[in-house]
Amino acid sequence: MSTMMTISDTAAWLSEHDNYLIFTHRRPDGDTIGCAGALAQGLREAGKTAFVFNNTETTRRYLRFVAGFLAPDDYDPDHVVFVDAASLNLFPKNSDKYTSAVSLCIDHHPSNTLYAQRTCLDGSFASCGEIIYEILMALSGSISAETAECLYAAVSTDTGCFAFSNTTANTLRVASLLINAGAPHREINKLLFRTKTRNRIKLEGALYSGFEYYFEGVVAISTITRDMIEIANVSEDDMDDIASLPGVVEGARVGITIREMSSPDGCKVSVRTSSPLVNAHAVCERFGGGGHPMAAGFTIDKPVSEVKEALLRTLREFL
Amino acid sequence: MSTMMTISDTAAWLSEHDNYLIFTHRRPDGDTIGCAGALAQGLREAGKTAFVFNNTETTRRYLRFVAGFLAPDDYDPDHVVFVDAASLNLFPKNSDKYTSAVSLCIDHHPSNTLYAQRTCLDGSFASCGEIIYEILMALSGSISAETAECLYAAVSTDTGCFAFSNTTANTLRVASLLINAGAPHREINKLLFRTKTRNRIKLEGALYSGFEYYFEGVVAISTITRDMIEIANVSEDDMDDIASLPGVVEGARVGITIREMSSPDGCKVSVRTSSPLVNAHAVCERFGGGGHPMAAGFTIDKPVSEVKEALLRTLREFL
Repeated sequence: MSTMMTISDTAAWLSEHDNYLIFTHRRPDGDTIGCAGALAQGLREAGKTAFVFNNTETTRRYLRFVAGFLAPDDYDPDHVVFVDAASLNLFPKNSDKYTSAVSLCIDHHPSNTLYAQRTCLDGSFASCGEIIYEILMALSGSISAETAECLYAAVSTDTGCFAFSNTTANTLRVASLLINAGAPHREINKLLFRTKTRNRIKLEGALYSGFEYYFEGVVAISTITRDMIEIANVSEDDMDDIASLPGVVEGARVGITIREMSSPDGCKVSVRTSSPLVNAHAVCERFGGGGHPMAAGFTIDKPVSEVKEALLRTLREFL
Repeated sequence: MSTMMTISDTAAWLSEHDNYLIFTHRRPDGDTIGCAGALAQGLREAGKTAFVFNNTETTRRYLRFVAGFLAPDDYDPDHVVFVDAASLNLFPKNSDKYTSAVSLCIDHHPSNTLYAQRTCLDGSFASCGEIIYEILMALSGSISAETAECLYAAVSTDTGCFAFSNTTANTLRVASLLINAGAPHREINKLLFRTKTRNRIKLEGALYSGFEYYFEGVVAISTITRDMIEIANVSEDDMDDIASLPGVVEGARVGITIREMSSPDGCKVSVRTSSPLVNAHAVCERFGGGGHPMAAGFTIDKPVSEVKEALLRTLREFL
């Protein structure tokens, strides 16, 4: 049983204890990274010892937000804190010894499995960063420029720089306060939202040139072949959020991304939908996958052409 | 001589007069359109008669924000109001008879020529929408959902959905209040920032595939040929903000877009720079054009290949 904590409970608990090790989740995004950096910074400013676990999956673009807080190998924490993570299997690589005793989880995913001894959870927030903001305000009454920088990264990443549909009035209110507190929003926006590598540009060129449309344009399919990946020489970091591309086409309510994997004949498929007729989870379940109603996926051991045909047959039942 | 008006002066003046015709500027963007719609709506809610001039350059994506306010042909206003427009030559087509007596200009461009009888100008605002927000709050003390919708379009468009470097803490504060007032931000974000036509997608595919890099990647060049435009079948609306694409490449400090025009051998060139070494205005001045230090342009009667060579020779002097 996890003890459910309010924001002020959480601030009080953090204030009463010490020696924290903060974890980011697998395939870390700006929200988990920004939250971890902000919490470490805020706790240190409150006189505590706090480090961030060295999640080796942290990509180049996010490293700056935790670089100053990475725990030394011999650090022996009193308390493990996991931020922006709904379940224990999101603990990063090489952290098995910490998963048995998570003192505190701070999260905004409604699907949180309440795996921690204490849980501060509010699914109404667009980003976990907004919760950390409230906790640090309750803890210290103010936010430093260093903390604001991390929190701005958290809040802006999870909302696609305030353009995604999860954005709320509170997201913008907190972002405004973070800029007033000194967050370098221009620099972060440029870094996170207005920069693409040359390889990413090349891949997008190939993808956009090959978009296919079905059902009078309601379905847009983007196919990423092994050849495209090789020619563009893209890394996993370059492929960030690549599955969102077909969904931006005017009139397309279902955006499908089929990625040819390196294993022979294998494909990874992502389905995004804004159509009330198509439940992405239901579509992907047919192929042994799943997810959410608006975003789901599956992997399959078949070549691209067969996968595409099977998907279109399935979609015909829905549309 | 224009009388400079504060926000409360402007609200008081609007309250004391009636029968307004509001103008959007040439090649209208979301800021001028959203401001005009919001001002018309807010004035009507305050019991005034207010219409928006039918600017025939208004594109499909923005029409909804002014569609309910378009002036009938026989409307004879007492006062002409021009929003988000720095100079008289930005009056739209077929509006010559109104330019001689502009009662009020509300604007955020520091370059405003003070052409109106009264001017409410504050260059510190990222969008004119933020000024209209303050004026309507001073006029009525609240913002309706209909007004908030128009103002959200204004504020978000001029800041690229809060990602451009002009975004301030105030922009986000006002956007947050507009959402609280009922602005359908999810729908507007999807419409304005997360929708691309199929033709635009096709053009971006061709452009991204053809980006060229010079000076170790500091200069990125995007070339839009007549063929590309024909094959993708893009309209001017589809080409919106196309000159910003090369500037997003990692490492590129100078983004150049060369567009082949329909006249034989003519090109339109846009230069965007974030490099302290390269002044876009100075570069474009060499070719008979000009603009701002960070964004400038020119047209030239030469084929693409010659233009590119001449530009690279000029840039070599700066870099």
